Amino acid sequence: MKYLIPLLALGLISSCKGVGPAPNETVVDPDTVLTTAEAMAAAGPEDWRDVDPDNVIYMELTNGRVVMELAPGFAPNHVRNLKTLIEQKYFDGASIVRSQENYVAQWSAGEDKPLGKAKTTLDPEWEMDWAPNIPFLELKDGDVYAPVAGISTGMPAAGDPKSGRIWLAHCYGMLGVGRGNEIDSGNSAELYVVTGHAPRHLDKNVTLIGRVIMGMELLTTLPRGTGPLGFYETPEENVPITSIRLGSDVPEAQRSNLQIMRTDSKAYADFVQARRYRKEDWFVAPTGRLELCNVPIPVRDTPAK
Amino acid sequence: MKYLIPLLALGLISSCKGVGPAPNETVVDPDTVLTTAEAMAAAGPEDWRDVDPDNVIYMELTNGRVVMELAPGFAPNHVRNLKTLIEQKYFDGASIVRSQENYVAQWSAGEDKPLGKAKTTLDPEWEMDWAPNIPFLELKDGDVYAPVAGISTGMPAAGDPKSGRIWLAHCYGMLGVGRGNEIDSGNSAELYVVTGHAPRHLDKNVTLIGRVIMGMELLTTLPRGTGPLGFYETPEENVPITSIRLGSDVPEAQRSNLQIMRTDSKAYADFVQARRYRKEDWFVAPTGRLELCNVPIPVRDTPAK
Repeated sequence: MKYLIPLLALGLISSCKGVGPAPNETVVDPDTVLTTAEAMAAAGPEDWRDVDPDNVIYMELTNGRVVMELAPGFAPNHVRNLKTLIEQKYFDGASIVRSQENYVAQWSAGEDKPLGKAKTTLDPEWEMDWAPNIPFLELKDGDVYAPVAGISTGMPAAGDPKSGRIWLAHCYGMLGVGRGNEIDSGNSAELYVVTGHAPRHLDKNVTLIGRVIMGMELLTTLPRGTGPLGFYETPEENVPITSIRLGSDVPEAQRSNLQIMRTDSKAYADFVQARRYRKEDWFVAPTGRLELCNVPIPVRDTPAK
Repeated sequence: MKYLIPLLALGLISSCKGVGPAPNETVVDPDTVLTTAEAMAAAGPEDWRDVDPDNVIYMELTNGRVVMELAPGFAPNHVRNLKTLIEQKYFDGASIVRSQENYVAQWSAGEDKPLGKAKTTLDPEWEMDWAPNIPFLELKDGDVYAPVAGISTGMPAAGDPKSGRIWLAHCYGMLGVGRGNEIDSGNSAELYVVTGHAPRHLDKNVTLIGRVIMGMELLTTLPRGTGPLGFYETPEENVPITSIRLGSDVPEAQRSNLQIMRTDSKAYADFVQARRYRKEDWFVAPTGRLELCNVPIPVRDTPAK
């Protein structure tokens, strides 16, 4: 609808001013903003990184594969323990035991299954010191739950410059480590993925260790459990997990070869800006705001060489 | 885990101070905060309202019913047009044609189906004047997308006191009216429900007319469409809609008799506070913050008299 374009171009600046609480508001020239498609097309090969096969896990379900990238920079001990469990094929024959509407899908190999060489308790890795060398694309849009929000090493994160702490954020698709009431009771044997609107109240209460980068729809479309907290009520309802493997333990021909847009690149910053000021014809009043868990982190098949 | 309780009780105030951007921060005495279960139990019969059968629609799928409450206070013309379509049994034999991961499910009776007595175009009802008599429970937690956010008449809403405007917010479960690029092209013949993390950038760009209050899982677990934007690629993939009916047009014995907690009650304000400062034993560091689309609006079966 052609007459919307001038509306958009002229109205963009004024319609964005004064909306929302962003502290660092600046006037944006619409000519500098790309559409999402343009931003994707503008990213060159150098703006994408291969997913490290040593830092990705494949959960094989009977109807497909869920691929999750790990975040050892944020939760080294929980990631290490998970790898120890995976080396032992701990999750072969495990099950998804919980699917709660607008919340999480969760899996387990059974509470009584011995962890072998893995540790049974771990100190929480809910947050950590915000070292200056940690890449962080800050969103100036504000955040309800934290003083600062942004994207770090391909993961949604939040932080507090005053306390000098940073932590991963419970956005849709994030992978976490279930725990009991004891804060050290999480050990990576019971994992969950966020399948609903971001439950950010879990931030800094439980350890996050990664993010689903492919196959999310296999988790979100699972039948919801009818028991308390969305647990399946009978073993027959449990959804079998064939295996969970580290990418590098899978024969090369069977790997999911994926790339993630480098979130420390200018191309990604331009992409984020494109999402903030939606320039596509359909939009009449771009918000000029972007909330942390609405920021996509693009994933693609590795292009053929 | 007993030793967490003193940690929580003592730490609640200090751990919440200085976190997040809330402008009206006050020190909260943990003794005044209920658990979610306590807040639900404290709500008396007067804190619940029956869902008005003239203001609710039932979408019958082959595997169950999706119940949606309408918001005529925010979008009177789109609601009226929808009711006109429903009176004509317009949606009998319609289909869910789109299920996009982390976004929306959408349905249609086919673009060529005549609308009968319903209007084909409608002026947008994206926002409206914020009349002083509109109930509004403001969340003092801040909002990324709007100057003010809160719950109004059982619906998530946002507003701008400066411009004197208020609008419904694109939270999980909200019901909207699809449109083309023409801003008046929405007519309630094509509807969508938000099935992913709240796409708040759609606020004030498209008309919202209600909210799913039962059966949400029937929409969120739909197979995802593999076409562009999550559209199903073949007619065989479409999910049949048996009918959509106004509650009052359904024989009483077949109605879903539901109640919604009155969002203008003190009981609801206490419930919201319980969600903000999670007092359950599992939580170690309650955020003291609550983002608009994380605020539940409780629905229950009408108790037997």
